[in-house]
Amino acid sequence: MKSRSLLLIPGPTMVDDEVLLEFSKHPIGHRTEEFSSILRECFEGLKYIFRTKNPVVIISGSGTSGMDASIASVISPGDEVICIKGGKFGERFVEIARAYGAKVIEFEVEWGKSFDKDKLEEAIANSNAKAITLVHNETSTGVRHDAEFVGKLARKYGLLFIMDCISSLGGDYVETDKWNVDLCISGSQKCLSLPPGLSFVAISERAREVIEENNPRCYYLNLKKYLNAMEKNTTPFTPSINHIFALRKSIEMIKREGLENRIKRHIRISHALRRAIEEIGLELFVKDDSIASRTVTSVKYPNGIGDEIRKEIKERFGILIAGGQSKLKGKIFRIGHMGNIDLKHIVSVISAIELVLKSKGFEIRLGKGVERFLEEYERYKI
Amino acid sequence: MKSRSLLLIPGPTMVDDEVLLEFSKHPIGHRTEEFSSILRECFEGLKYIFRTKNPVVIISGSGTSGMDASIASVISPGDEVICIKGGKFGERFVEIARAYGAKVIEFEVEWGKSFDKDKLEEAIANSNAKAITLVHNETSTGVRHDAEFVGKLARKYGLLFIMDCISSLGGDYVETDKWNVDLCISGSQKCLSLPPGLSFVAISERAREVIEENNPRCYYLNLKKYLNAMEKNTTPFTPSINHIFALRKSIEMIKREGLENRIKRHIRISHALRRAIEEIGLELFVKDDSIASRTVTSVKYPNGIGDEIRKEIKERFGILIAGGQSKLKGKIFRIGHMGNIDLKHIVSVISAIELVLKSKGFEIRLGKGVERFLEEYERYKI
Repeated sequence: MKSRSLLLIPGPTMVDDEVLLEFSKHPIGHRTEEFSSILRECFEGLKYIFRTKNPVVIISGSGTSGMDASIASVISPGDEVICIKGGKFGERFVEIARAYGAKVIEFEVEWGKSFDKDKLEEAIANSNAKAITLVHNETSTGVRHDAEFVGKLARKYGLLFIMDCISSLGGDYVETDKWNVDLCISGSQKCLSLPPGLSFVAISERAREVIEENNPRCYYLNLKKYLNAMEKNTTPFTPSINHIFALRKSIEMIKREGLENRIKRHIRISHALRRAIEEIGLELFVKDDSIASRTVTSVKYPNGIGDEIRKEIKERFGILIAGGQSKLKGKIFRIGHMGNIDLKHIVSVISAIELVLKSKGFEIRLGKGVERFLEEYERYKI
Repeated sequence: MKSRSLLLIPGPTMVDDEVLLEFSKHPIGHRTEEFSSILRECFEGLKYIFRTKNPVVIISGSGTSGMDASIASVISPGDEVICIKGGKFGERFVEIARAYGAKVIEFEVEWGKSFDKDKLEEAIANSNAKAITLVHNETSTGVRHDAEFVGKLARKYGLLFIMDCISSLGGDYVETDKWNVDLCISGSQKCLSLPPGLSFVAISERAREVIEENNPRCYYLNLKKYLNAMEKNTTPFTPSINHIFALRKSIEMIKREGLENRIKRHIRISHALRRAIEEIGLELFVKDDSIASRTVTSVKYPNGIGDEIRKEIKERFGILIAGGQSKLKGKIFRIGHMGNIDLKHIVSVISAIELVLKSKGFEIRLGKGVERFLEEYERYKI
């Protein structure tokens, strides 16, 4: 028997059939009134999800294309940029900024922890940085950083605040305007439950001024082109038309649920899942609840057992979870709970973990984790 | 009554239902053995279509992303680049090369004509250029340039040959290796009959050496990353998974038809269509058959009539054709005949043109163009 697999990795995530139907529609001309009207709806809908009054441009490309476009459009060679690290995607900003000739100040953060606030302010105060980068929800470690705090410092010291919320937008609170995020980057294949292929960048007035003045050394990823095209309800280059159809549907579904409800659903699930993991006797990689991601939970492999757990969960139960990345390879596994996930997915993965651990000789009363999950799930007031 | 529209613009083109079904499949994990095996098939299939033994990388992005990646990955600031112009996309190479700091030598070509061979050689001989760019099939004018000749000059003078075959690959002869094309760029939404969203770049040994030595000022579009990932049957960033499913199917369909047959089908249709246009009494924008595109036909609007023809063809008959771009706006219309097109589409558009012209007071015997098309179609030996 082969049922449909569960995709519980931190992106790509599960896509609703309504959205897949949009995806399978025949493309239409992208320079038509018809298509512009769909684009217009998407531009408006993204503002609702990003909680911004500013434009949100749409790039046909991976999430990384939006990170790249943001750096490339505001950073000139020799500019100082502070990059808050602490995971694979924090490091990606370092690599991108370097590729564009920035003088990067790497602000180190232990993987699995968040940054020290005083030290961060000190680093900013002692720099001549033009911009600071943060990965709001570090997918590689499962840490959620205090973006509001970084936004306050950025404003205080006059830095542009560039934030990746690729794996949090639509699943956790992201207050683009309130937190002073100047370039706020997300992607389609995480909490928006779309297939991968689109990136979004919300652009503040301040960022826009820098972009307008700048003469960026890039073309396809030059945000100026996207801003200009957006004013005519179009895109500078032929977009992924089917992704746009699907995006409109995804926005409609998010509005139907309500952004606030959607976020609370993620918080409830991540909270209850964390307790269940502890109950089973596994160790959470991110100890501190207050910085734990609401969309991905990272768990240490128990002593002597590694990625074979993940493999067995996939083979025996058709549930795909993720391993560790970079230096966490073989040390942790990660459960993505982004987008269209609810109780049934999480009790399934907890059940599978329990059975596989037991089969590996791990002492466990079966159903213990599920029981705790259900109790916490019920107790949580939404 | 509203039947399905005909998309006869030069991209996006009509997508077969088999391919759309692939598009509607649920995404799978992109770091799985399953997905790598699909990617491997695509990498191999693209070599067949590009007629190359070298790697063809896949970028999630518009066709322009592949043009950008090619320039960004081999050109350093100050490098001389000769750009053969003659249309909107020829000019795009100029803009991209300038964005990356190249010293551009613009080789002007009258729109609707091809380049003067002696003058081109002279320009190359008098330059210190590192690379030369050509748009094989200039979508904005409907001109097909002699790429083989440019490839010979490029080899003779030691230049890298960067060619955009976005609107010809899969619909006209493109001999990547035989023509010495070092960076050969195409896209999904033209003759491959896929929705827009993917770009492909075939990379020669010579180009690869330059890429390896270079320290390019780009990140998402750095071809080195794609080459390295390809060796492990993967992509450097989360790809548009559904596009990859669809690409595999499109390659399968192209192999089923046979690349040679597919190209001949395009040649037959473009030849017969050109004769039909003349028969109606309209003027072809590209006079010379030997340089006329096999995938897009550009036609001058008759005196006193303009884009309202196009509008009426769309509204009355549900057939979308394209207008002119840049300086040809309002002066020409363009019929795209790329990918999955055959007799029924072309007799439909000719019929619609005849009826609309007549309704505008143009003297014409109805059916005249269709008649000529059918005669030429029948006569053409494939």
